[in-house]
Order: sequence, then structure tokens, then C-alpha cells
Amino acid sequence: MSSLRDVAERAQVAISTVSAALNGTRPVAAGTRRRIEQAAAELGYRPNLLARGLQSKRTRILALLYPAPRSGFGLTEMQFATGAAEAARELGHHLLLSPENADPIEELRHLTGLGLIDGVLLMEVGLDDERAAFLAAAGVPFSMIGRTRDPGSIDYADIDFAATARDAVAHVAALGHRKLAFFNLSADAYADGYGPAIRAGEEFAAAARAAGIGYVDGHRPGSAEEGREAFERLMDAHPDVTALAVMDDHAAVGVIAAAAARGRRIPDDLTLMLVLSSAGVAEMFHPRLTTLEPPGTELGRLGARMLVDRLSGGGPPQQRLVPCRLVAGDSSAPPPVPGPAGGPREGRPA
Amino acid sequence: MSSLRDVAERAQVAISTVSAALNGTRPVAAGTRRRIEQAAAELGYRPNLLARGLQSKRTRILALLYPAPRSGFGLTEMQFATGAAEAARELGHHLLLSPENADPIEELRHLTGLGLIDGVLLMEVGLDDERAAFLAAAGVPFSMIGRTRDPGSIDYADIDFAATARDAVAHVAALGHRKLAFFNLSADAYADGYGPAIRAGEEFAAAARAAGIGYVDGHRPGSAEEGREAFERLMDAHPDVTALAVMDDHAAVGVIAAAAARGRRIPDDLTLMLVLSSAGVAEMFHPRLTTLEPPGTELGRLGARMLVDRLSGGGPPQQRLVPCRLVAGDSSAPPPVPGPAGGPREGRPA
Repeated sequence: MSSLRDVAERAQVAISTVSAALNGTRPVAAGTRRRIEQAAAELGYRPNLLARGLQSKRTRILALLYPAPRSGFGLTEMQFATGAAEAARELGHHLLLSPENADPIEELRHLTGLGLIDGVLLMEVGLDDERAAFLAAAGVPFSMIGRTRDPGSIDYADIDFAATARDAVAHVAALGHRKLAFFNLSADAYADGYGPAIRAGEEFAAAARAAGIGYVDGHRPGSAEEGREAFERLMDAHPDVTALAVMDDHAAVGVIAAAAARGRRIPDDLTLMLVLSSAGVAEMFHPRLTTLEPPGTELGRLGARMLVDRLSGGGPPQQRLVPCRLVAGDSSAPPPVPGPAGGPREGRPA
Repeated sequence: MSSLRDVAERAQVAISTVSAALNGTRPVAAGTRRRIEQAAAELGYRPNLLARGLQSKRTRILALLYPAPRSGFGLTEMQFATGAAEAARELGHHLLLSPENADPIEELRHLTGLGLIDGVLLMEVGLDDERAAFLAAAGVPFSMIGRTRDPGSIDYADIDFAATARDAVAHVAALGHRKLAFFNLSADAYADGYGPAIRAGEEFAAAARAAGIGYVDGHRPGSAEEGREAFERLMDAHPDVTALAVMDDHAAVGVIAAAAARGRRIPDDLTLMLVLSSAGVAEMFHPRLTTLEPPGTELGRLGARMLVDRLSGGGPPQQRLVPCRLVAGDSSAPPPVPGPAGGPREGRPA
């Protein structure tokens, strides 16, 4: 096994310089540091992190705990992970991607019991999140991407649903729309107390009220077929709706098909916005949909940074809300001019 | 700072049992282990992993090194990461999500120099991959999701492009198609020596030849606009093509729009397959596209398992190829019956 001395000899520097370079205890010129790291790699020298960890009781490893993806991870969840990994790395830390398996609390016990990690980053946070409760009780430093119903003094970075809803409502109101329908996430997500579903629902209603435009909600389609059915029911009950905000990507597929079947053209007859979906997904649609794109990378970065800050010392809680970015697509337009009866034109061939 | 003895007292077990539970040196009943982990967490007991690592020279941490996503990580890349994290966890290891930053070799030097990791998992592997060359030269255990041009004895799990192409060609041949066009990944990906682009191109050509059906390639659209243009050029030069395999999701959007503009209906006039795209993406299209779905989770799991096997001892190289799964959508149908002139019907209104 190679020693610190072997590394110092190969890199032609003092032992104290090797120690400083590998442990970060004082600045070392980039070229020198690189030579030392190369020598350490070539010699298979490794125990310094562990020794440093034993000494400082810090491993500089954070765990991003994520649930088993119900219907597969989406692009936004991926951005949480890569954003957090990048920020952690920039701040001299490393990020574990830690699946929760069946029992998230058991996994947390395992991770913290091992002494492997300095802190935890939670994502897919529920309004009443048992993981957050466990970590708070155990005194393990953590931050949240998302937030519980009552986050208290826990650091978090979450979507600003109020600003997002205001921007979306302002977008359609400026085009002249007078009545907006909102299709929330699936009934399952709503029933599970999934924060984004609950908050988006509340904030869209509030924003429409504040803007003085008509508003319809209560639909929660989670698939293309449910999107199709929800659109049919919506048009039967509220034929005067000319703008639609849809949370679930797959539901949007059904909405678009159902609109075409009814002869409602997008955007001529109907403005359609995807909410909390990426511009990459919106480009899959034809026409390209207007999107409220969640700041996935930024939230991931913020969550990791807050956690590192917390590990480095005290300070007041950091709680940040970031709005989605409105990316205008080809699915937004002024509403159609009302027909002779004052209602929308129905059944016109596309 | 709490000791092993404190944990043993709180959990009401012998010190040797605590050690066995936390270090995995012998089996401990699940209930007992949980009590010990809980006690360790409550007491903030942590140094065992580090001490164990110092003793065994193993940290049980693997790093998944990933490049800065050029156009954002896709769902398949996410599956590599989550699959690898799950398999690592099941095998008693942990997975770091390690961004490469500007210089992947410098990042590898840093990771290996720190003594943090036991091995590396590479993804987005180039035909001539400098990271693989570095790790092999440095003697760092690693495995690849994907593979270099000449992987030698390095463990890898990759897509079986030959079987994937055979399945795709057999799918359209069985429907009665006699001429297939293949739209590869963008010219950029091709020029970079990106394995999947090169291999898919070769294998589709070979499979079409073996099946005795006509074949057109050379198109490499990387966006909706390029997909539109490529389809126009294809139809001008080869109006008798009735089946199309497209690698780039965004190019497919342009192909579909261009086909509609030409009055070519999918699937009545044209069968369209997405290659190396997820069924989740295919469902965004209308009609839902037939897809050759890459085994992302399985490849991630295999890569992690091979690396853990390698770390646990010798054995011959493990090199596994897994085909994409053909998920039939609504974009596949027999080709149209030729019109009076023997060519395809053009310009028919949709």
C-alpha cells in the first residue's frame, strides 16, 4: 500500500503539500494539485478521504433520497438530480443517488447509521412527509426540493406556484381569453397529498379570481384516455372555455385528440398550456405547446447548496420559491370571435 | 461522540452484534438490525463506515460518471442512473452521481485520488473513450454502459443493435413493407463517434439487406425542422418508401408534420417507428408510435452488478448485449395497395 510519502516523492513535492492538496486544508496551485492527484491515482493511494472523515467527522457526501418512480422518472426529476450533483461537486461535495426501496425510513436509518453521509436531500416531498419528520427528529441535516405543509425552519427550494399561476393566467388574459379551465394531476396524486397538485390547484383558482376571468376546475385526468374524457365533459358543461391549462403530459395528448375530433383547432379555437412540463416535452406536440417549465436544475442546485451551507454552520433557514418559466409555443392565440349566437363555434371541420 | 458500546447498550445487544449489523460481517436478524440502526441514528453514531473503509480499503461506493448533458438528460439516461443505483444498493453498495464537468479525466483523477470510491461506472461511452483508457491505465476497476470500439476484457452492458435492427426490420417486413428508410441521430452525434449512432446505422443496413427489403439511409436529422426537410428529400428521391425508422425524437415530430402536409397518413400510408426512444415518449405522439425501447434500467442494473462482481474477485469479463423491446403502437400498418401507376398514392387529402 502506498503512503503519503510515496505520493510526495512521485509528485516531487513536500508531504505537507500532498496533505494540503488532498485534504483541502490550504490552497495549492492547480498544476501542483493535478500532479499530486495524478501521482495518487497512479500509486493507488486512497485512504486520505477516510482518514480525513475520521478526523473531521465529515465525509462530504450528501444523499439524494428518491422514491421508486411510479411511472418512471420524468425529465424534471432528472434535473433535480443532475442539478444537485453539479452544485454539490462545485462545493466540494459528492452526491449519492439513493433509492428508497420499499421503506424510506429504513433506508434513512441505514444511510445515517452507516456514517456514510453528512446530510440528506429530499425530493418528491409530501405535504405530510414521514422522511422529513424522521430526519428532523433524528437531528440529521437535510433540505427539501419541494416542501411539507409546514416546513418550519427546514431549508427548502420549491416551485413558486402562486407566481406560476399568475403568469399563466396573465398570458391567456392578455390574449383576450375570458374563461380558463384547469386540468390538475391525476386523482391519485391529489389523494396522496402531493404538494404540487394541491398547490397548483389552489393557486390557479386564486389567480383566475384575482384576474377576474372565468375558471373551471375539478378535472384530474392522468392518462390520454382520461384527458379525452375530461375534455368531452368540459366542453359539454362549459362550451365557452377557450383556454386550458393541463398538468399531466399524457392527459394533454388526449385533450388534443379530443379537441381535433370536436373540430376545435389549437390555437385558433383553443389555447392550450402545459403546466410543470419541460419545453423538451412541449416540442413533441404538434403544434408545439406553450409550457410553464419547472426550474428543475435550479431547484436541484439550490437544494444542494442550502444543505452544504447548513453543514458549514448555522444561519437562518433558507426557503426559496422559484416560478416556472413560461415558454410560449404555437398553442397560444386570441380566442375566436364569438359566432352569431354569442357562443363558440362548434363542429366546424378542421 | 457515541461509541459502539453506547449503541449496543441502547439497542440492548452485544457489541459484536452491533459490529456485525453495521459492517455486514455476519447475518443479523432484520428486527435486530433495525433496532441497532435506529439506536445508531439516534445517538449520531457514525464512524464505522470510515473505520471499516480504512481497514478493508473498500468504501463500497461506486461513481457513475456522466457528461454534461448536451441537450438535457433523456429518460433512458435517467434509467441508467436509477437502475444502477438500485442494483448497487441491493448489493450493499452506494452510487455517486458524478458530473464530469469540463474535464472528465481531471474528475476521475479527483475521485480516485480522494480514495472515495471502489470503482467507476461509465455511461455515454464513445468508440474511442478517453475515460476508459485512463481508468484501464490507472488500474481502477470500472464497467461501461455502452462500449468502446475495442472493449477488450472490460465489463460492459450495451444495447444489442443487431437484434434490435433485426426485430425492427422483421416488424415492417411482416406487415408487407418492401422499402424502409432509416433516419439516424444528428450529424453531430455521428461525427463525434457516438457508438449508438454508428452501430445502429450499420445494423439497420445489414438487417434490411439480410431480409431482402429495400433500404435508404444517409439522413441524420437532429431537430423537428431537420426531420421535416429530411422527409421532404426522402419522398422526392424515394417516393416508394412506406416504412420509416427514426432515431431522434424531435426529428420524428418534423417527419409527422411533413407527412401530414404531403397527405401521407400514418399508419395508412406510412409506418413510422421510433428507435431507442421510450414508450413514454412514444405515447406523446398521435398516433402513438411504435417504439424500439432501450432497456435502460436493465443496462444500468447490469453495469452496476458487473462492477460489484469485479470488485469482489476475478472471473472472466462480463459483456452483455440486450436488445431494445419492440412496443407496437398505432403507427404500424400494412403498406397501401399500389395505385394504378404502381407507385404510392400521393397528395391524397388526409
